[in-house]
Amino acid sequence: MQQQISVITLAVAALAPSRRFYVEGFGWRPVFENEEIVFYQMNGLMLGTWLGATMAADAGRPPTPSGGFALAHNVPAEAAVRPLLRRLAAHGGRILRDADSPPHGGCRGYVADPDGHAWEIAWNPAWTIDERGWVTFGS
Amino acid sequence: MQQQISVITLAVAALAPSRRFYVEGFGWRPVFENEEIVFYQMNGLMLGTWLGATMAADAGRPPTPSGGFALAHNVPAEAAVRPLLRRLAAHGGRILRDADSPPHGGCRGYVADPDGHAWEIAWNPAWTIDERGWVTFGS
Repeated sequence: MQQQISVITLAVAALAPSRRFYVEGFGWRPVFENEEIVFYQMNGLMLGTWLGATMAADAGRPPTPSGGFALAHNVPAEAAVRPLLRRLAAHGGRILRDADSPPHGGCRGYVADPDGHAWEIAWNPAWTIDERGWVTFGS
Repeated sequence: MQQQISVITLAVAALAPSRRFYVEGFGWRPVFENEEIVFYQMNGLMLGTWLGATMAADAGRPPTPSGGFALAHNVPAEAAVRPLLRRLAAHGGRILRDADSPPHGGCRGYVADPDGHAWEIAWNPAWTIDERGWVTFGS
């Protein structure tokens, strides 16, 4: 079986605040959007932001607040971590943890998107990111 | 800025039940593991399963149950959806929704991993998956 994740779908309370965070904060462009979902073509998988009630009904479970996971976006230089955290906070994000160095090195901070989904913004010099955005484990 | 997700990290209560689900259920191989985290090299990003208390402390937020998001693993044929759901349920997963056809076509069901993280197992003939596991939006 391919070691493959096809989609990450985040529950959102409304599309507009989420769209502002991803389009104006991260600077990403949707590949598809309608009245209930927005898709972004990512590095080999899709990121979806979907109205939470519809999404929960589709999965056959009650709507639940976000928790228990985090996404990370790695940047190519330590100096890029803080500016991106600030830019995301300026577009509806909420800083959870300011940037500092974790025990394994590098630099990272955390910001929650408008629906509480945690994003780690990290510089990790041990992990390579190629020109396609493909991230490879390194130690 | 690259439209890129580097890591998806899932909070886990203990490593062993989660490892069984991913290694024996999905058939994936860890690229790294220690006493608090297991990493899997995925299609251009990393999947991490990390002890929830440590993860929450790192993110500067209280530990929270899983909710508000889902991951998807797409398979190449409709006939592959149900067997994978059953295999995952046999390795510690819990079926949330049996496989059926969503309004947009294809076939999908949902299974929760041992920590409640929702996985959609889907056949979506509109989205291509190449030999590297790279998933591309199609409509």
